[in-house]
Amino acid sequence: MRVTVLAGGVGAARFLQGLVQVVPPECVTAIVNTGDDLVFHGLHVSPDLDIIMYTLAGLINDQTGWGIAGDTFACLDFLSRYSDDTWFRLGDRDLATCIHRTGLLQSGQSLTDATVALSQRLGVGVRLLPMSNEPVPTQIVTPDGVLSFQEYFVKRGQRDEVREVHFPGIEHARPAPGVLGAIAEADAIIVAPSNPFVSIGSILAVPGVRQALRERRERTAAVSPIIDGSAVKGPADRMLRSLGVESSAYGVATLYQDFVSTFVIDEQDAALADRIRELGMKVVVAQTIMRGPSEKRALATVALDAARG
Amino acid sequence: MRVTVLAGGVGAARFLQGLVQVVPPECVTAIVNTGDDLVFHGLHVSPDLDIIMYTLAGLINDQTGWGIAGDTFACLDFLSRYSDDTWFRLGDRDLATCIHRTGLLQSGQSLTDATVALSQRLGVGVRLLPMSNEPVPTQIVTPDGVLSFQEYFVKRGQRDEVREVHFPGIEHARPAPGVLGAIAEADAIIVAPSNPFVSIGSILAVPGVRQALRERRERTAAVSPIIDGSAVKGPADRMLRSLGVESSAYGVATLYQDFVSTFVIDEQDAALADRIRELGMKVVVAQTIMRGPSEKRALATVALDAARG
Repeated sequence: MRVTVLAGGVGAARFLQGLVQVVPPECVTAIVNTGDDLVFHGLHVSPDLDIIMYTLAGLINDQTGWGIAGDTFACLDFLSRYSDDTWFRLGDRDLATCIHRTGLLQSGQSLTDATVALSQRLGVGVRLLPMSNEPVPTQIVTPDGVLSFQEYFVKRGQRDEVREVHFPGIEHARPAPGVLGAIAEADAIIVAPSNPFVSIGSILAVPGVRQALRERRERTAAVSPIIDGSAVKGPADRMLRSLGVESSAYGVATLYQDFVSTFVIDEQDAALADRIRELGMKVVVAQTIMRGPSEKRALATVALDAARG
Repeated sequence: MRVTVLAGGVGAARFLQGLVQVVPPECVTAIVNTGDDLVFHGLHVSPDLDIIMYTLAGLINDQTGWGIAGDTFACLDFLSRYSDDTWFRLGDRDLATCIHRTGLLQSGQSLTDATVALSQRLGVGVRLLPMSNEPVPTQIVTPDGVLSFQEYFVKRGQRDEVREVHFPGIEHARPAPGVLGAIAEADAIIVAPSNPFVSIGSILAVPGVRQALRERRERTAAVSPIIDGSAVKGPADRMLRSLGVESSAYGVATLYQDFVSTFVIDEQDAALADRIRELGMKVVVAQTIMRGPSEKRALATVALDAARG
C-alpha cells in the first residue's frame, strides 16, 4: 500500500499524524509545499517541511502549530541588536535545522537530499518530498503591493486583502525527484486539509503535477480545509472570498474538481453535498475537525477509504 | 593621539579594556588576527574579533574568556541531532553574531565592513580591523598531521605538539583597508600580550605589515605574553619550546626585535632585562598580570608610555 499526500503546513501535519496510525509511515509520501520557503539572514527556511517534520517527530509546539516545543529565542533576540529583520520567529533549536539545511545545500545537496537527511535524523518514517528543488517563491498581490508569502503571512499577520496569488517563474521549475512517481504509483492520493491557493495551489502549479494528478483522479480524495465557511486555521476563508471563490467546502471543491474524485467534507457541511456532487465528485461526510489522536486517526481512515474508492 | 594595537584574543581584549580607560576608545585601532577564523556549518566565525568585540561591549563571559556571559547552547545541542560536528561551542547569542556576519559577507560586504557594522551595533568605540579581508587560515603541523587552527585549539584541546605554524596562501593576501594606515599614522603602536605565533605571527605574515611596523619601530612597544616562563592563558609557552624558541619573555623578544623598540616584561622576569636589552630593545619592568580594571589600566598606561618613548 502506497499513500501519497499533498501537504501544506499545520493542517497537513495533523492529518499525517492520523495517517501514520492507519498505515506504516514507510508507506506514506508527503509532497510538501515549498512556495513559502524563505532565505532569512542567509539561512534556508522551509516552514512547511519543518512543521511536518517536527510534528511527525513529536517535537512540534502544539500551541502554535509551528516550531519546536519548549524552544527558546536567545539567538533571534540577540540578532535584533544587529538587525530590525527579526520578524520571522525562528527558535534556537529551529535554527539548528535551518543552519544544517543551509550547510547541506551549500555543499551541493538538493533540497530533496537535505530533507531526507534532516528527517531521518529526527526519526521521521514518512518520506517527505519538497514539491520542487528549485526555489518557487509564492507572491501575494495586495492593495499595498506585492509581498512575499512570509511577509504577508507572518510579518503582516495576514491582514492584507489578497487580490492575486502568483508563482513567478514556476513554469521553469521541475517537480522534485520522486514527486511524479509518488503520484503515478500511489494506491491512494490524498489532498490534505491545507490552503487551496498557497499550500496546494503552489504544488499544483509545478509543471506536470496537476496533469499527473488528473490521470489518477479516481484514486485521489481531498479533505476540505473549510468547515462551515471558515478555515480551521489561517486565512484560506478570506482568501477564497477575495479571490472570487465561495468560502465553503463547495468553493474548494470547484478548485479541485479536475483531479479529485472524492471530496471529504465536515458533517456541518452536509447540506453542500449535492452541489459538490454536481461537480462530478463523490462526497464523503465525516467529522473532520482533528482535536486529538483518535479524531486524527478516524479522519485518516475516512480519507484513505475515500481515495481507494 | 592615535594608538594602534596588534591583537589576538583574550589577552588582547583584556589589554584593550585597560587602554580605553586611558585614551578615548575612538583613538584606538585594533588590528585583529583572523587566522583562526573558521566556517562552521556555513557560518563565518571570527573568534578573535568577537572576543574583543564582546569584551569591549561588556558582554564577554569572563570565566571562559570567550562567548557571551549567560549564553545558552540550545541551537548547538539540537544541531548535534543532525551532525557530529558540534565541537566549536557557539552559544545561541554568539550564533546571532555569526549569522549576521555571514549574511553581510554574502551580500557582498567585506569583513572590514561587517566588523564595523557589528561592533557599532554593540556600542564598541574602538575601531576593530581584521588583519585581512581574504581568508588566511592558520595551519598547525603536528606529529599527527596538519590541523586547522581551531581543530588544534578547540577540537583537540591544544594537546598536540606544534612542529610548525603555516599561513598557506598568505603571500597573496592583502592587509585590510586601514591596516597599513593605522600603523603609519599611529602615535603609539602596542603589540598586545597575545600568542606570538598564531595571534601576532599571522598578522605579521600579511604582506607589508611587518615592514610597515619596522618603519615605526621607535613607536612600537610589546607586552610579553609569557611570565616566568609560562603563558597566562593558552599554549604559547609549549609552542615556543616545540618551535625551538626559549619559553620566556626573552624568547618572545627575539621574535619581535626587528619592529619593537620597547619590551614590557613582568616584574617576575626582571632578571631577563639585560638579555633583552642586548637584542637592541629598551625594557620596561611592570606588573603585567591583569586581574582587575585597575591593573588593566596601569598596564595600558605603562605600555602606552613605552610606545611613545
